[in-house]
Amino acid sequence: METQGEGGHPYIPRDLKLPDYVPVFLSQLTILSVYGISSLLVVSFMWILSGRFPKTSKIDRWLMCWWIFTGLTHIILEGYFVFSPEFYKEKTHFYLAEVWKEYSKGDSRYAGRDSCVVTVEGITSVLEGPACLLAVFAIATKKPYRYTLQLAISLGQLYGTFVYFITSYLEGDNFAASMYYYYAYYITANAFWIVIPTIIIIYCWKKISAALQVQELKKTKLR
Amino acid sequence: METQGEGGHPYIPRDLKLPDYVPVFLSQLTILSVYGISSLLVVSFMWILSGRFPKTSKIDRWLMCWWIFTGLTHIILEGYFVFSPEFYKEKTHFYLAEVWKEYSKGDSRYAGRDSCVVTVEGITSVLEGPACLLAVFAIATKKPYRYTLQLAISLGQLYGTFVYFITSYLEGDNFAASMYYYYAYYITANAFWIVIPTIIIIYCWKKISAALQVQELKKTKLR
Repeated sequence: METQGEGGHPYIPRDLKLPDYVPVFLSQLTILSVYGISSLLVVSFMWILSGRFPKTSKIDRWLMCWWIFTGLTHIILEGYFVFSPEFYKEKTHFYLAEVWKEYSKGDSRYAGRDSCVVTVEGITSVLEGPACLLAVFAIATKKPYRYTLQLAISLGQLYGTFVYFITSYLEGDNFAASMYYYYAYYITANAFWIVIPTIIIIYCWKKISAALQVQELKKTKLR
Repeated sequence: METQGEGGHPYIPRDLKLPDYVPVFLSQLTILSVYGISSLLVVSFMWILSGRFPKTSKIDRWLMCWWIFTGLTHIILEGYFVFSPEFYKEKTHFYLAEVWKEYSKGDSRYAGRDSCVVTVEGITSVLEGPACLLAVFAIATKKPYRYTLQLAISLGQLYGTFVYFITSYLEGDNFAASMYYYYAYYITANAFWIVIPTIIIIYCWKKISAALQVQELKKTKLR
């Protein structure tokens, strides 16, 4: 079990007030394994399922895997955080509370309920989460709006991650219990939501521009 | 000249610390007139200029007017705020400092340099501002990416305004000097950046989907 600071909790800053804080019960390995294995199951399921859709490219199948993974993360993990302001008091060893107690070692603004973090997580879980599931459906059924939707969600994820990092920087960037948690949780975990949305934005932007270019050329020819 | 509260400034909350605060010098009418008249000049200039571009629809001409107006607002007004943390100490009656001293009556988080407000304004002025000017160019020259760009900026504006309103709500929604300033500045001024981006998102979404639908149909026919 974790060591307690003077505030009765392991987080930084030490003077963060968290009355009735109950320490993390599960080990880091257990918490990460549950998330890792469930994600792997979800992604495997989607990879197999997507293979049964006619004429679905490998890129589209990978995209469907990403959207189901990130969508469920937004809705379940982040959704729990948004609507559970007192997760740090949770005594029942409920897995989702354990996740946020553990993650707060990388960024105590979660336990401290920073309004900017809650806002970004709120938009992410309530709007973007369901939109990710819609993206899976849109890709599977080849809806004409599928690129626009993926572009819109990815832009939202990128905007949210920017706000998340910049506000921390402006407030002194001192919310991690140690350099280990800073890099492992705060930097590494969030880096995925910078890199992958950026790649998807470029991909969808090109797809959309190509379609519009074809339309423009046709119009020009008709004149 | 404005009345001073106990903190030596006219803002709410009263205990907001603003050492060396210098009161607003210009009248509300002057501040609003300068912004209103400059905006009108910019929009008129763009309306006339856009009329000289061949085959530019009325909708595109209005869009160009919007993008030049909102782009310059982001770069000049909001850009000044982002890079002038001590604007409330400004003694020279510099117009841009006067704007933010006045606007802070509707939302004191500006004078108080709330990190969430600074972050959103930073993204808006540094990334979205120049992107708005690029949108004017893209519409004028009918670039294939013009709808995607307008959609992306509008989504960013909408996300920013959401973060702006939700964080205030979560922190008690008590940053306006009076109900008058609350509705005139905080609500009314920002409502434009909810309504107009929403309309543009719907417009561009439809344009992009239509082009993609045509492409899909062509592909299906070719099979």
